[in-house]
Amino acid sequence: MRVALDAMGGDKAPAEIVKGALQAVNLYPEIEKIFLVGKEEEIKKYLNGNAEKIEIIDAREVIEMDDHPALAYRKKKDASMTVATRLVKEGRADAIISAGNTGGQMTSSLFVLGRIKGISRPAIATPLPAMKGITLLLDSGANADCTVENLQQFALMGSIYAKKVLKKDNPKVSLVNIGSERTKGNELSIKAYEELEKMDNINFTGNIEGREIPQGKADVIVADGFVGNIVLKLIEGMGKTFVSIIKEEVSKSFISKLGAFLMKDALMGLKKKMDYAEIGGAPLLGVDGISIICHGSSDSKAIHNAIRVAIECKKEDYVQEIKNNL
Amino acid sequence: MRVALDAMGGDKAPAEIVKGALQAVNLYPEIEKIFLVGKEEEIKKYLNGNAEKIEIIDAREVIEMDDHPALAYRKKKDASMTVATRLVKEGRADAIISAGNTGGQMTSSLFVLGRIKGISRPAIATPLPAMKGITLLLDSGANADCTVENLQQFALMGSIYAKKVLKKDNPKVSLVNIGSERTKGNELSIKAYEELEKMDNINFTGNIEGREIPQGKADVIVADGFVGNIVLKLIEGMGKTFVSIIKEEVSKSFISKLGAFLMKDALMGLKKKMDYAEIGGAPLLGVDGISIICHGSSDSKAIHNAIRVAIECKKEDYVQEIKNNL
Repeated sequence: MRVALDAMGGDKAPAEIVKGALQAVNLYPEIEKIFLVGKEEEIKKYLNGNAEKIEIIDAREVIEMDDHPALAYRKKKDASMTVATRLVKEGRADAIISAGNTGGQMTSSLFVLGRIKGISRPAIATPLPAMKGITLLLDSGANADCTVENLQQFALMGSIYAKKVLKKDNPKVSLVNIGSERTKGNELSIKAYEELEKMDNINFTGNIEGREIPQGKADVIVADGFVGNIVLKLIEGMGKTFVSIIKEEVSKSFISKLGAFLMKDALMGLKKKMDYAEIGGAPLLGVDGISIICHGSSDSKAIHNAIRVAIECKKEDYVQEIKNNL
Repeated sequence: MRVALDAMGGDKAPAEIVKGALQAVNLYPEIEKIFLVGKEEEIKKYLNGNAEKIEIIDAREVIEMDDHPALAYRKKKDASMTVATRLVKEGRADAIISAGNTGGQMTSSLFVLGRIKGISRPAIATPLPAMKGITLLLDSGANADCTVENLQQFALMGSIYAKKVLKKDNPKVSLVNIGSERTKGNELSIKAYEELEKMDNINFTGNIEGREIPQGKADVIVADGFVGNIVLKLIEGMGKTFVSIIKEEVSKSFISKLGAFLMKDALMGLKKKMDYAEIGGAPLLGVDGISIICHGSSDSKAIHNAIRVAIECKKEDYVQEIKNNL
């Protein structure tokens, strides 16, 4: 397994990215090489002389978090993200991983790797922490306006990924909607229900409402990228708000503080269950290669978990499986 | 203030509804009369002989939670919800309150009270608990497909309600979207941004992303009913999931249990901050009269809080204020 890692992408780059790479080399024997792509002198600072299975690929530009994706892709030919993606296209690496500008990664993956023939729009498939295991949400933000056909392709790709990489047996695929009945919803979701039901290569289980999403009732949930992105960010925001309110309430009394101290293990268990970093990266499904998108705030743990996911992606070759199903 | 209360609506009807009415009579001196509408013999069971300011209006039918709204409205002419709404139309009551079938209440309010002239679609405006105070979300489910004009009217009505009833000074109105920039979003939200910006009778503050919603950064947030309903139910579901996970984690050790006991006040503070019942009912804005929709699981506290809101609605006469602004 050879990984192309964008060393300059993310709020904590390059320090945490490099650290994550070093941890991955120790953790996963499958790794033959990690290409750290970015400004050589910056990367070296955090390598501390470690070189085992690491190769630095110097790239002088960075697509910043607030850059316009398409413009930045066109202007910054030597951006770390793009250079890393080219390594995959050239067959030198098996997967590209970045915690940088999500739109930038979508653009470079789309232009450098290309779409899988037959897929109209690639989708970001984000594994969400839920009560029972993990739920895969797609599209979580690549396509704000979608057609029924797009949603059908998301359902198929998500189902294949959930089966192969997330090891879900006959994954349950649900449509995000505002009622359980087939007649509920907006124009898009009512039509999508009909078409999803007809597909014999997925296990469609009907609609899923907002309040059921965190329970993990479905293995794969399908939505257009507008709804999906709002769902994803709202879940993130709710987690942060709960933690803030608990902290504020606890700080009000000594007894509560003592209680929180004693509840430490339980609160850590909650945190672990809700932790994105434990899950590790969202694949961009539909491009012709493995491209893993990490959260902008990824730390070394999130990075080595994303590398673990990339190893699994290569082993299970979900890209080929999608091609076989089209 | 004379309230028409659907005594048969909701999972805990009629017991908790009647109890809530009795509590309201004690709590709010503004109340002249509460009409309890429904099966007389059932209502009497829970009145325990109390009659002060209470009048029972016998209605023999009930629109059940799983009834089809429009069909049930047409077939069940003597439904408690519809009879209660007629009391408002006839001028005998100032507001209708129900915890029953939401679609049923929308239908009966629309047909019996009618729309305010100039409003194309009424919207459900749900007050959400947030870090800082309350955020009003509309539409939270009445209209799955919306036009830009619909969203503009929601913004105006929500702004007036927030100012008058929620006492927000120059309320900040935001559009639910997937990025902060004006160019982000789907076709509807990009166009809506342009039009909302032009309105001089609201204080439009731009887009709000999913993760910012629970923070309470905006006073009024506008979305189509599809997105709004998913947001509303996801917030509810996240709250329940957090509580379940904490309970499960706490139960794993004696020390955690002791911790939770000591943290009781803090956890109650969290519960209070996130409690729908404390807030009390969502007005259906755009119909020509006060119609307050309560959560199906409303208990007596939720009901008397909804009555408190209805009193405020009448006092501030937001319906007239909407008319003045069209």
